[in-house]
Amino acid sequence: MANTMKAVRLSADWKPRPGFKLGSKDIEKRQTYLGSRVWHDPRLSIESVPVPKPGPGQVLIEVKACGICGSDVHMAQSDDQGYILYPGLTGFPCTLGHELSGIVLEAGPGAVDKNTNKPFKGGEAVCAEEMLWCGTCKPCADGWPNHCERLDEIGFNVDGAFAKYIVLPAKVLWSLQPLQEAYPADQVFKLGSLCEPTCVAYHAVIQRGGGIRPGDTVAILGGGPIGLAACAILKRQGAAKVILSEPAPERVAIAKKLGIEHIINPLKESFSERLLEITHGMGATLYLEATGLPGVVYPEVEKAIWEGRTLNSTVVVVARADAKIQVTGEVLQVRMARIVGTQGHSGHGNFPRVIQSMAGGMNMLPMITKEITIDQVPENIVQLRTDKKESKITCIMK
Amino acid sequence: MANTMKAVRLSADWKPRPGFKLGSKDIEKRQTYLGSRVWHDPRLSIESVPVPKPGPGQVLIEVKACGICGSDVHMAQSDDQGYILYPGLTGFPCTLGHELSGIVLEAGPGAVDKNTNKPFKGGEAVCAEEMLWCGTCKPCADGWPNHCERLDEIGFNVDGAFAKYIVLPAKVLWSLQPLQEAYPADQVFKLGSLCEPTCVAYHAVIQRGGGIRPGDTVAILGGGPIGLAACAILKRQGAAKVILSEPAPERVAIAKKLGIEHIINPLKESFSERLLEITHGMGATLYLEATGLPGVVYPEVEKAIWEGRTLNSTVVVVARADAKIQVTGEVLQVRMARIVGTQGHSGHGNFPRVIQSMAGGMNMLPMITKEITIDQVPENIVQLRTDKKESKITCIMK
Amino acid sequence: MANTMKAVRLSADWKPRPGFKLGSKDIEKRQTYLGSRVWHDPRLSIESVPVPKPGPGQVLIEVKACGICGSDVHMAQSDDQGYILYPGLTGFPCTLGHELSGIVLEAGPGAVDKNTNKPFKGGEAVCAEEMLWCGTCKPCADGWPNHCERLDEIGFNVDGAFAKYIVLPAKVLWSLQPLQEAYPADQVFKLGSLCEPTCVAYHAVIQRGGGIRPGDTVAILGGGPIGLAACAILKRQGAAKVILSEPAPERVAIAKKLGIEHIINPLKESFSERLLEITHGMGATLYLEATGLPGVVYPEVEKAIWEGRTLNSTVVVVARADAKIQVTGEVLQVRMARIVGTQGHSGHGNFPRVIQSMAGGMNMLPMITKEITIDQVPENIVQLRTDKKESKITCIMK
Amino acid sequence: MANTMKAVRLSADWKPRPGFKLGSKDIEKRQTYLGSRVWHDPRLSIESVPVPKPGPGQVLIEVKACGICGSDVHMAQSDDQGYILYPGLTGFPCTLGHELSGIVLEAGPGAVDKNTNKPFKGGEAVCAEEMLWCGTCKPCADGWPNHCERLDEIGFNVDGAFAKYIVLPAKVLWSLQPLQEAYPADQVFKLGSLCEPTCVAYHAVIQRGGGIRPGDTVAILGGGPIGLAACAILKRQGAAKVILSEPAPERVAIAKKLGIEHIINPLKESFSERLLEITHGMGATLYLEATGLPGVVYPEVEKAIWEGRTLNSTVVVVARADAKIQVTGEVLQVRMARIVGTQGHSGHGNFPRVIQSMAGGMNMLPMITKEITIDQVPENIVQLRTDKKESKITCIMK
Repeated sequence: MANTMKAVRLSADWKPRPGFKLGSKDIEKRQTYLGSRVWHDPRLSIESVPVPKPGPGQVLIEVKACGICGSDVHMAQSDDQGYILYPGLTGFPCTLGHELSGIVLEAGPGAVDKNTNKPFKGGEAVCAEEMLWCGTCKPCADGWPNHCERLDEIGFNVDGAFAKYIVLPAKVLWSLQPLQEAYPADQVFKLGSLCEPTCVAYHAVIQRGGGIRPGDTVAILGGGPIGLAACAILKRQGAAKVILSEPAPERVAIAKKLGIEHIINPLKESFSERLLEITHGMGATLYLEATGLPGVVYPEVEKAIWEGRTLNSTVVVVARADAKIQVTGEVLQVRMARIVGTQGHSGHGNFPRVIQSMAGGMNMLPMITKEITIDQVPENIVQLRTDKKESKITCIMK
Repeated sequence: MANTMKAVRLSADWKPRPGFKLGSKDIEKRQTYLGSRVWHDPRLSIESVPVPKPGPGQVLIEVKACGICGSDVHMAQSDDQGYILYPGLTGFPCTLGHELSGIVLEAGPGAVDKNTNKPFKGGEAVCAEEMLWCGTCKPCADGWPNHCERLDEIGFNVDGAFAKYIVLPAKVLWSLQPLQEAYPADQVFKLGSLCEPTCVAYHAVIQRGGGIRPGDTVAILGGGPIGLAACAILKRQGAAKVILSEPAPERVAIAKKLGIEHIINPLKESFSERLLEITHGMGATLYLEATGLPGVVYPEVEKAIWEGRTLNSTVVVVARADAKIQVTGEVLQVRMARIVGTQGHSGHGNFPRVIQSMAGGMNMLPMITKEITIDQVPENIVQLRTDKKESKITCIMK
Repeated sequence: MANTMKAVRLSADWKPRPGFKLGSKDIEKRQTYLGSRVWHDPRLSIESVPVPKPGPGQVLIEVKACGICGSDVHMAQSDDQGYILYPGLTGFPCTLGHELSGIVLEAGPGAVDKNTNKPFKGGEAVCAEEMLWCGTCKPCADGWPNHCERLDEIGFNVDGAFAKYIVLPAKVLWSLQPLQEAYPADQVFKLGSLCEPTCVAYHAVIQRGGGIRPGDTVAILGGGPIGLAACAILKRQGAAKVILSEPAPERVAIAKKLGIEHIINPLKESFSERLLEITHGMGATLYLEATGLPGVVYPEVEKAIWEGRTLNSTVVVVARADAKIQVTGEVLQVRMARIVGTQGHSGHGNFPRVIQSMAGGMNMLPMITKEITIDQVPENIVQLRTDKKESKITCIMK
Repeated sequence: MANTMKAVRLSADWKPRPGFKLGSKDIEKRQTYLGSRVWHDPRLSIESVPVPKPGPGQVLIEVKACGICGSDVHMAQSDDQGYILYPGLTGFPCTLGHELSGIVLEAGPGAVDKNTNKPFKGGEAVCAEEMLWCGTCKPCADGWPNHCERLDEIGFNVDGAFAKYIVLPAKVLWSLQPLQEAYPADQVFKLGSLCEPTCVAYHAVIQRGGGIRPGDTVAILGGGPIGLAACAILKRQGAAKVILSEPAPERVAIAKKLGIEHIINPLKESFSERLLEITHGMGATLYLEATGLPGVVYPEVEKAIWEGRTLNSTVVVVARADAKIQVTGEVLQVRMARIVGTQGHSGHGNFPRVIQSMAGGMNMLPMITKEITIDQVPENIVQLRTDKKESKITCIMK
């Protein structure tokens, strides 16, 4: 094994906007929780960096596949003042990439495989959470790692997986063995790289939204990767009807490959009217806001809840947005409804269940619309600023 | 027993506003789901009416106590165009009064006492739900009687309890026997008349809000009857701290009698700042919006959730309001929070548990700040339009 | 329409065993809660009886299909002392049959279709609950109709559906319209007649067992109609693996038609060993005891829980049995497990969700292994005493 | 600070019984998961040992109070063949003691106080979990630390708190600051030492049992420390009636100090009959088996569930026992009941909620019936083999 490797790196200048103050977890010139307030002039490059070594509790992984996420795009994109668009935790320079799968090469001391409850021995196919939860703060102790108070994030402030190798704590790895039993070898790592975004959707609709009962109807607003994954998961959970609201034909095409039959084009028809038509006036039990445009879609969701006869419905808000949601309390009251927020993908058995679901037949491969090499990652990150045709662009490591 | 009895009656003229159309459950000149769109010139009176007879499944009750509710006030109050303020189900003329307790006098065939699973025999002390759920529509069949699609309401479109006697279906009655074991005779029926509003609060925080675990902290916004009852219930459920936001000194005085120690005066101090101070920066697990002013209070609730470290908190919206709630989705996401609506008090074991809680020590009598006779009911209904000093005005029948 | 109709009737003699006392709901010579203690010499016949008339809240249904249930067999079968085997609520003579579907012919006053919230007008395709819950006792008021304290049961103490027509309260009917949209006409009523047993399984695993999350693994012990329906439901809910323990090849064949891949033959291999092998040592999240032989199967279930690594598993006990279940508390403790009992199918949205699940693709038709006419019902009820090859024998009414 | 300190140590000989094999986590001559199969001739002593130093993520605590637990007694007690009675994880020689409170003296790098989310600085009053969950195995990653697959236990295989000082990972410590606000200084650490056993009861009835709703009735079988703590917790949660079954007058006296009014002496009266009498035939919603004698008490619990009208009740099994529980499935079915097992106290917000509940008024001090010095610990551990009069004997460190 060589000592150095290629990696897709993001650099930027520490140039805080006026009024910015270092937060409790910020580190001068290195790391901040408020990326878009600090980092200026982002620059993508492919560099040669040293191959890392696994420490205690860590493993070295040979990366096999890694998807590009919207946050990769926003970290590398600047506003008209030159600041990056991504508002969250960031520490540059940093190797990007957090939707990864790979093979364990070497394990540090005490690095245990959760799948076997034995030390990693090398050769295991794995995927990884993106969140490096500390395991010792109050939220972690309470069982809520997605709200860790001392979080690190792979590919944001810790070197990520657009590289030949990556070192990660064993505790965030999940075995892909069930996929190896169920899919051809070349598909295992692609599916593995889809686990992270699929788990975001799973956490949203199953853990936070409470899921549905077989025979319920659901409506997903927005056919980006999270919305599409939610469609597949809820169909898998027995939804009688999965209804997707999405105008883009490329995304609708993927939805159809995932088995989704009911599509509403909200630019051409009224979401609420069409939903009530499809459901014979009942409406849906679960609504997922995955557009990032709550100002546009929530009035229609509310109308569907108000006019539909379904009680006890849940609106899950997964997409981040600046706009306020204008909520009519009486709708929540008369229809016994609720609104919940969701973030993250860790904990709660999400990863092993997503992997088992894929192994059991929930084939998410249609989500990947383009496969690229590591050398093509920077240009594709740039291209995704404007290109809305692709769903998931995935880097296949050779 | 005489053939006639005194009753507090509300009459009004059927004079639909322009554009009004009869709804599916409306009855021309008799009943509507949209009271404030139809009823004009409301008139309160004390009249002599026939004593009703119990039919199959019904009982005749001698009323012992009945509280005045805010909706009684709004039914009898007109706007500047002469229409009643109350927007909901109404059928006039009607005897008002729905927060009642009394003694069973006579039972129709098949009228069973749920407390004993035997026919009523007379002499049983009972209180009543206000909602005459049909028991046969889809929500009722699903176990959600508060959302009955064929609802009647005592004292709204069915003759109520500001009268010597009332006939009610046995299925909405609940035995006060536990109170008879625990309280002096003269207090049993007063407590019984408080069951209905207390159950509205119980349903809101326990059934819909999911309750708390012992050691959690809660914040109640608004010290009207529902807010105060919620304070008592959550203290009973083991809240480490119950924090009430309420400016009116009369209401604060009642809260203190109910054992509430932490009061915030939102006119003099910031709710969010004071809450975070009391909770050492943690915030609350459950927030109850019981003011009817979400535009005023929700921003402060949201600030407390955002700045506090408590995860998984719930905002329960019980007060009706026209104003939108301006919700920041990111607060729900980052803090793993949710918003739920609530209405009603029926089903879910609410009534027997409230009665047992009162019997076990949750003494709600401080809620009653004034006792009146039936002859004084009309003037007190009028007085409550402006008088905010009283909490619960209760008619004691002789 | 004729005034009389053919019906499959069961008669028996009221001949209480020594020591029997009339219970609170028993009626001398007519009805008892303890069938096997009272009824002697059961006799099946096909008789001509008057066509019933629908009263208030009732409808007249033309029966289209009705399945034979094990309890039909046990009511008509006597022990060596001549008493019927069925131990529960019975009132003879009675028309048998409770797994029914049909078409509404005529509606009494106030008979509302839950599907439309409007009066039945005739022509609606429906199926029915078997339990005539009273809607007014404490369990019914609390939302638990399966535990009604004043229950009547179709085909047990109230005339059932092995007849040309039946009168039923509208509140226990459920529209088959979703099936009409999804299946050919001749399959709709067959599927409709399967709703009742499927709902028993749905209530067991979804409502009482709490269901699973997509990606979990389940084990069903016993491939009778309830066990098979549970397999289909849990596969529909996203089980990664559904594992059925069943020795009879005819039942295994049906399971395979329902899409079940993993079969254990407990007569030829160890259930626990095979289960742990299939699940790579993990075990299952939900176990359904549907054999009626807990003495035989529970030790193996317990072993699987103890040796498997799965935590938080649930054992649902649906089959009735006299034998005690020998439970090792430490297994429940160390594996964070639980045991729950289940009975019934009413309430909780079970029926509409089962119907929607069937409409959405959960095709239960392989459950029906034999179709007969009404004239063949008595002989088939007798045949089922010994014949274990058939799954569901269904009477198709012409 | 001295370099050495007094400690209560337990030594024993590694002398495996015939047929014993080293398990996956066992360490030859040092540690086993099956204590009673291996350790011979236990010997208690007070020794001088080095004061430990805190490593990364650890703190040094000056112990202030530590209670004696039944497992301390069983580790130091041998059967007639000379083997210790305690069957679980043990590694000798070991300093005993795990129900501790104390003051933080010194923090290693990265040792964070969950209460403040800042590094420990010294001077903080804390108590500790007994379970050193690894935080990286599958159960830990899923949020179930009580079922950690790589557990260490304070005072069992890791040096405990019957010593002047102890070193512990910061992640298992919980701040006693709320108690410092609410109680006199000398009571804070006594209450702190009661947190661990109280959390076992809290986890049992609240997390695993699902708790109750205010107004429900509960029955606790067995008035040992866990049973008594459960009484206090459920009273705090709003139980209308807390009913304790316990024959020993000393334990009953403590229960009364904790506010428990209803006591059943099962040696003098029938538990089920008396329970049904107290509850007017209803029975209880939650039953806690805390006697360790399920063969004796479960038949009575089952009888109470069967004959009572309460549905949906839960039996929580917390006491360990070899005897099987003889469960009648039909009781669970007809009464919609369930049985759950529980172990441990970690995670799920248990500790902070118990501390806040104590601070809010749940005064557990009556649990401590005897205070001793460290020198008296060995003799009291021996005395507890036979002495059933004491509830909690607590070592107060000077």
